[in-house]
Amino acid sequence: MAQNFEIVERVGVSSVSVSDAIKSAVFGAGKERPVAWFEVTRQRGCVTDNGDLEYQVTVKVGRKLG
Amino acid sequence: MAQNFEIVERVGVSSVSVSDAIKSAVFGAGKERPVAWFEVTRQRGCVTDNGDLEYQVTVKVGRKLG
Amino acid sequence: MAQNFEIVERVGVSSVSVSDAIKSAVFGAGKERPVAWFEVTRQRGCVTDNGDLEYQVTVKVGRKLG
Amino acid sequence: MAQNFEIVERVGVSSVSVSDAIKSAVFGAGKERPVAWFEVTRQRGCVTDNGDLEYQVTVKVGRKLG
Amino acid sequence: MAQNFEIVERVGVSSVSVSDAIKSAVFGAGKERPVAWFEVTRQRGCVTDNGDLEYQVTVKVGRKLG
Amino acid sequence: MAQNFEIVERVGVSSVSVSDAIKSAVFGAGKERPVAWFEVTRQRGCVTDNGDLEYQVTVKVGRKLG
Amino acid sequence: MAQNFEIVERVGVSSVSVSDAIKSAVFGAGKERPVAWFEVTRQRGCVTDNGDLEYQVTVKVGRKLG
Amino acid sequence: MAQNFEIVERVGVSSVSVSDAIKSAVFGAGKERPVAWFEVTRQRGCVTDNGDLEYQVTVKVGRKLG
Amino acid sequence: MAQNFEIVERVGVSSVSVSDAIKSAVFGAGKERPVAWFEVTRQRGCVTDNGDLEYQVTVKVGRKLG
Amino acid sequence: MAQNFEIVERVGVSSVSVSDAIKSAVFGAGKERPVAWFEVTRQRGCVTDNGDLEYQVTVKVGRKLG
Amino acid sequence: MAQNFEIVERVGVSSVSVSDAIKSAVFGAGKERPVAWFEVTRQRGCVTDNGDLEYQVTVKVGRKLG
Amino acid sequence: MAQNFEIVERVGVSSVSVSDAIKSAVFGAGKERPVAWFEVTRQRGCVTDNGDLEYQVTVKVGRKLG
Repeated sequence: MAQNFEIVERVGVSSVSVSDAIKSAVFGAGKERPVAWFEVTRQRGCVTDNGDLEYQVTVKVGRKLG
Repeated sequence: MAQNFEIVERVGVSSVSVSDAIKSAVFGAGKERPVAWFEVTRQRGCVTDNGDLEYQVTVKVGRKLG
Repeated sequence: MAQNFEIVERVGVSSVSVSDAIKSAVFGAGKERPVAWFEVTRQRGCVTDNGDLEYQVTVKVGRKLG
Repeated sequence: MAQNFEIVERVGVSSVSVSDAIKSAVFGAGKERPVAWFEVTRQRGCVTDNGDLEYQVTVKVGRKLG
Repeated sequence: MAQNFEIVERVGVSSVSVSDAIKSAVFGAGKERPVAWFEVTRQRGCVTDNGDLEYQVTVKVGRKLG
Repeated sequence: MAQNFEIVERVGVSSVSVSDAIKSAVFGAGKERPVAWFEVTRQRGCVTDNGDLEYQVTVKVGRKLG
Repeated sequence: MAQNFEIVERVGVSSVSVSDAIKSAVFGAGKERPVAWFEVTRQRGCVTDNGDLEYQVTVKVGRKLG
Repeated sequence: MAQNFEIVERVGVSSVSVSDAIKSAVFGAGKERPVAWFEVTRQRGCVTDNGDLEYQVTVKVGRKLG
Repeated sequence: MAQNFEIVERVGVSSVSVSDAIKSAVFGAGKERPVAWFEVTRQRGCVTDNGDLEYQVTVKVGRKLG
Repeated sequence: MAQNFEIVERVGVSSVSVSDAIKSAVFGAGKERPVAWFEVTRQRGCVTDNGDLEYQVTVKVGRKLG
Repeated sequence: MAQNFEIVERVGVSSVSVSDAIKSAVFGAGKERPVAWFEVTRQRGCVTDNGDLEYQVTVKVGRKLG
Repeated sequence: MAQNFEIVERVGVSSVSVSDAIKSAVFGAGKERPVAWFEVTRQRGCVTDNGDLEYQVTVKVGRKLG
């Protein structure tokens, strides 16, 4: 029987770059279960107290079940 | 290293008001892990047998990951 | 055979609150046929001449067909 | 008590212009009940046998309920 | 003068298949007026008490006006 | 000649209710120019330090231009 | 360094045609700052007291920043 | 007090049909907690090495919380 | 066996009107293969050097495959 | 260097079922170039002269480029 | 009383990277008023005369009002 | 007469960064016809066997027609 997947939604945070925030979210989600794919769904951020940008990137992560 | 977040989706139910349904969803999600933010994504409902409205509000809840 | 439903779209108007506008739309649609469920799809409004808010809430209403 | 509205969806057809198709849909909907507002939601069309364009414009029409 | 169309929204219900639910919605809408086209806009469902799936498919149906 | 409108986007904040946050956004926007209409486009919020909800409601506000 | 742009949202009103309403919105926005591009995002309207259509077209206008 | 629901997102996989993939996702999600409703949100797939279609259907599943 | 269709996306450009830009896109796409239908998906434009509007209308065009 | 993909949009037509229409679109697109994945983006249809349903399913098809 | 926010829409331009275009838009918007948050809503670009990419990133910027 | 454009959809793949995947898609599309503009419409990816991220970025590319 074919295997199913679950999709979990994570927000990766990074003060370096958008790509770094994506990696943080995906690798975090991969600690619990192997990641099959991911999709970026929202890119937000804020300005920190010392004037830098903090990237907050929402990522949907597909993980193989059982 | 910056902390990441998970987003979980809940439906709060209330026969009182939309705000009450939001609170129910958010406080329920907060029992397991502290809530950082929430976003209302759908407002539905039905008419109960005694003719009142029951509000069913879908809320995405962001929670800080350990 | 399973029963089908129709979906009609109504705009409830209220100067009291969003919930009151929802009720107005749903109960109005229920006069003609029993309401099975409803969904809020748009929340607009205007400022009346005496400076109060008037809420105009669009609601899709599902009704069971005979 | 404030009056409610119904929203009906019509497709106006015209071989002249998009505006003409909008008018056709709105005036048609207005024959049954006074039109309060309208909103264009889709613009499609086809090429007729003699090579002209036929415009098919979907319009949501708000009408005041008795 | 070109003929206009109305679009009505129906939910077809079936415990057999998605296609069966579509048919139910379209043929139901066709009893009142000839159907020109249809479009599937939402596919939901529930699990019945004996563990089967019930498909509830929302269909927009275009019908030619008089 | 017909008058045009501008649309500005505001976020109203309230710890009382969604309606209160809407009012805050609309009345704030109305201090600079008369408000013709408003539309709610997003409802977010957070949990404050003492455990209450803070509602942050995004509202698009239409204002008549001179 | 590359120049940035601002996007402002305007509603042009015309009793003549959709194109006329677009022009009204774009030229109005251009009085304050040169217009780089525009995008039509919503087409609404109403029926005036003497039975004509009034077009209300929402336009996002991109303007080059100093 | 009214009970709340959680919504989880699953991808059901089947080489037979779309309906089969839906069933796989819904019944999989039901092993952990009773399913109240489901909604199909995306239908993708691929071509397998022997030239057949594999359906990958994303389903949001609502489950009643204890 | 039923015939399939392809959908191609074109941008028609005109300094006259939106309808003229639609025609330009549809007739251009029809030179290669007969057009079955079209749908307008985006309306943009710019201001030319002599102060006129240039309409850039995106159209999806359905064409019957051999 | 990694290989890129193109996405083409096709409408499969079938009087049998939605799945049959998907297959028709995907296999048609695969005659020119190997199909990597597909995604269903719209499900429409019409009623044929003898009262049956004809399914018209829009599918985006990803194909590996040389 | 709680403070409100305004949301302004900016397009940042950069020939270096997407992140650089985001920074340009956010820091530009921050010259007039402190930035509370930002959200990326569209990523476009063009090819310059010497064959490089120019990134044009639309960013919605939230700024605290007086 | 004004020139028209076609829009083609490509997926650029890169194990380096999102920007690199965009470049790959745009430059690939430019080999056949000059690129006028591009727009990023989806950002996905997967985890490769050695644990790195592979970015798969969907780009719509506008190209001037002869």
